[in-house]
Amino acid sequence: MKILYSVLLICLSCNISTAQTYIGDKNEIEDILQNLEDFSRYVMSSSYQKIGNSYTDDAKIFPNNTKILAGKPAIINYWTLPEGVNIIHHKIMPDEIRIVDNTAYDYGYYEGVTKKIDGKEVTWKGKYVIVWKKVNTEWKIYLDIWNGVK
Amino acid sequence: MKILYSVLLICLSCNISTAQTYIGDKNEIEDILQNLEDFSRYVMSSSYQKIGNSYTDDAKIFPNNTKILAGKPAIINYWTLPEGVNIIHHKIMPDEIRIVDNTAYDYGYYEGVTKKIDGKEVTWKGKYVIVWKKVNTEWKIYLDIWNGVK
Repeated sequence: MKILYSVLLICLSCNISTAQTYIGDKNEIEDILQNLEDFSRYVMSSSYQKIGNSYTDDAKIFPNNTKILAGKPAIINYWTLPEGVNIIHHKIMPDEIRIVDNTAYDYGYYEGVTKKIDGKEVTWKGKYVIVWKKVNTEWKIYLDIWNGVK
Repeated sequence: MKILYSVLLICLSCNISTAQTYIGDKNEIEDILQNLEDFSRYVMSSSYQKIGNSYTDDAKIFPNNTKILAGKPAIINYWTLPEGVNIIHHKIMPDEIRIVDNTAYDYGYYEGVTKKIDGKEVTWKGKYVIVWKKVNTEWKIYLDIWNGVK
């Protein structure tokens, strides 16, 4: 009986820690979830133009220790890795996505692994908030801010 | 004449660097601007309950190097300074506020000065994104994420 309770408790706490809240039209939510997955794929394949196209033309990103970077050229430049460096793992795990009209916000965690020139792998993890805008029929990132998790 | 051009150029660049975009009902925008000012006042006077009341009950904050902190007790705990430490200057400078229905987002820069126990002053600056929610008639902070500017 004690074991049953323990298992139940573990299951419950798993559910709590992975609970996601998606509020909005199902198809729109699926589009945003797909965009998050695609974004990770573009980062892992160093597809910089596709990374750029994930953002609106007037998007802003907020990397740590820089000013706000605005517009696609600055954003693509930020994401462009030095020759020989690769991000071999990238995953975005949204906790909540909420669509309000043609705007949406989304927050959660991300994780990644960078393979450096010397072959060493660096693992990183963080949390983020994205503000999305619907441009014609496509959801694009308008604001993208993040910082680390120890 | 050359001096006139220089002055004109300086004025123009000032205008560009301080340009703000506020989209939404004028009174609602003014409420949010007032809330940002009040928030800085509460931080400077260590009014922790008032800081807490600036957030929704289910708000999330994203301080650097921590997990996402959710709910008022965790948020008030984060903002509570050690005895003898004071934030003697705090200012939030929004670049853009946009209201969409009962949600709004806002981003920009902030700056502050912390006076430590030994009397030394530490100056800091950063950038932020806030997602606001209108709770009854009041705008409250739902998501609050920031990171530094060198």
